[in-house]
Amino acid sequence: MNYRLKSIYSVLKQRRLDALLVTWPANISYLTQALSRDSYLLVSPPENIYFTDSRYTEEARIFLKGNAQLKECNGSAFGQIAKSILGLKLKKVGFEERYLPFAELSKVKEYAPGKFDLIPTHSLVEDKRAIKDSQEIDKLRQAADITALALEHIQQYLVPGVKELEIVGELERFIRYQGARAAAFDIIVASGPNSSQPHHSSGERKLKDNEPVLIDLGVDYQGYKSDLTRVFFLGKINILARKVYAIVLGAQEAAIKRIRPGAEMAEIDRVARAYIAKKGYGKYFTHNLGHGFGLEVHEDPRISGNEASAVKPGMTFTVEPGVYLPGKFGIRIEDMVLITRKGCEVLSGSVNK
Amino acid sequence: MNYRLKSIYSVLKQRRLDALLVTWPANISYLTQALSRDSYLLVSPPENIYFTDSRYTEEARIFLKGNAQLKECNGSAFGQIAKSILGLKLKKVGFEERYLPFAELSKVKEYAPGKFDLIPTHSLVEDKRAIKDSQEIDKLRQAADITALALEHIQQYLVPGVKELEIVGELERFIRYQGARAAAFDIIVASGPNSSQPHHSSGERKLKDNEPVLIDLGVDYQGYKSDLTRVFFLGKINILARKVYAIVLGAQEAAIKRIRPGAEMAEIDRVARAYIAKKGYGKYFTHNLGHGFGLEVHEDPRISGNEASAVKPGMTFTVEPGVYLPGKFGIRIEDMVLITRKGCEVLSGSVNK
Repeated sequence: MNYRLKSIYSVLKQRRLDALLVTWPANISYLTQALSRDSYLLVSPPENIYFTDSRYTEEARIFLKGNAQLKECNGSAFGQIAKSILGLKLKKVGFEERYLPFAELSKVKEYAPGKFDLIPTHSLVEDKRAIKDSQEIDKLRQAADITALALEHIQQYLVPGVKELEIVGELERFIRYQGARAAAFDIIVASGPNSSQPHHSSGERKLKDNEPVLIDLGVDYQGYKSDLTRVFFLGKINILARKVYAIVLGAQEAAIKRIRPGAEMAEIDRVARAYIAKKGYGKYFTHNLGHGFGLEVHEDPRISGNEASAVKPGMTFTVEPGVYLPGKFGIRIEDMVLITRKGCEVLSGSVNK
Repeated sequence: MNYRLKSIYSVLKQRRLDALLVTWPANISYLTQALSRDSYLLVSPPENIYFTDSRYTEEARIFLKGNAQLKECNGSAFGQIAKSILGLKLKKVGFEERYLPFAELSKVKEYAPGKFDLIPTHSLVEDKRAIKDSQEIDKLRQAADITALALEHIQQYLVPGVKELEIVGELERFIRYQGARAAAFDIIVASGPNSSQPHHSSGERKLKDNEPVLIDLGVDYQGYKSDLTRVFFLGKINILARKVYAIVLGAQEAAIKRIRPGAEMAEIDRVARAYIAKKGYGKYFTHNLGHGFGLEVHEDPRISGNEASAVKPGMTFTVEPGVYLPGKFGIRIEDMVLITRKGCEVLSGSVNK
């Protein structure tokens, strides 16, 4: 059995739980070390069981190896899950409270009332996932490298008259030729005033001369996600945009300098926020400074002003200050960092700013 | 206010509910007629309220118009939702039991114990969504047309030595040049033996001569999804593959012929299943015959052997029998149908089989 499943056994022991019902796809992927889709995982020392339907059993048989028994469920898996809990005589079964919907929780509960307890848990697997192992870091490096290549490649396409979605399309094509499985999220290409929406949905707008174009791109390399943002300028850069760009870049550099094991997340957020505020644009930096990335493009930790937890070696997160001037333009600069023993390494350090 | 929100008011009246808390993105998109992301919608006759965070408020202000009030929530929205329920003095609030996780339900409940009841509901919005209006049908037609064009376009790329993911990449590029917002799901390109996994995850395998390649493609056109599968053959088609292809096609034709308002879903599934079974391949048709599509690529109705509900005009669903021979190959033929008053129209009818 792999070490990740074993580490959950230790957590179960500490918490006096007999099992954990894992329903969040990224958590299942982490524990099985495979792309998990439409599946559920019961982690319990007597036996781990992986539930999926007939569409996925052929691939599951290959990747599960000795890590879990495979149960094929056609129709709702939750009756079958309850039956397995009974069969293994488990009494205290943790479930993931953030992900299990009311209806499915009820289905398991009502199957055998009084026979076992379902106990809400929070972040048991996510806490493990926040610290990446060397195998994960290798994949994240590959994901970052493909993203860097894609941003290099796309610049020749950034000419007036091209539509945002055409840029997205070319990026979607290119990353797969470089070995990515998919984009990590809907790629954002936001031209001109569209860039003032931090999560603009790319559309039919055409790139224009003397406008910025913001590209926020991530790829999925063997399940691991990257996330990188740059702003390019077509033709001339106006004075305001140049000024705001310098402020955002300065804020990012200051924040990255502060990252080291032991630093508080809130402190890092504060460094960037204070920098931008001092320059007079504080109210236009409207989101958190960053977020963890790995099997999900947004995962723990959150780099925000009210996050008291500390930076630890092996964490990977984004640093992405932004200033958004409604109706005008937005500037965000986003890089990916890996926390080392003494500070951090910028995984996307090769990409020009 | 739009007619969709009004139709939910009628449902609330019938069910004696004061409000419905809508948390499923596709349901929110349906009711707001806009792409909804990271948002929640409280539908209540005194006031509809749309909750989202600062990344989306600029676009929400534009699309909400008079349909709902906008509340910006940074951090968890569920405290704010509970506060709004209290403020509007709502007593009986329905929630979507299939989608609301335990933790968020608890958050709303614990905010003001005893002040209001949260009542599980099922498919209130989905029931409306199952019957498409003319605006939706127009978009689905566009989605189907782009998909058809993409399958036409891709055939020149189907040559030995090209990787599955490169085919995926070219499709991802092409559809955006045709006006699609995105692919509707991870496009499946399954070559040779990979095609025996109904939901193969496309990878680095290269297409080979004298092998089938299965392509399952869908696009998102203004939020509306398509879903279409064809199998192409490189070089010679072996006798077994030719035989299985004819069986799957025969099953699909028989099922489509049976589709008309009033027919039972299970009956349509049975027609295809019986056809394949009679030819000796029954145990290799391992999934349902089809599923509804619209704002989601999988939505109501399910075309399965235990679905007693009836076909109705305005429904849109796939008809996709398949035969999967493990380790050898799989054949699936999938088309999209729109139910008319007397039978059905195959939206993907222009695509060769």
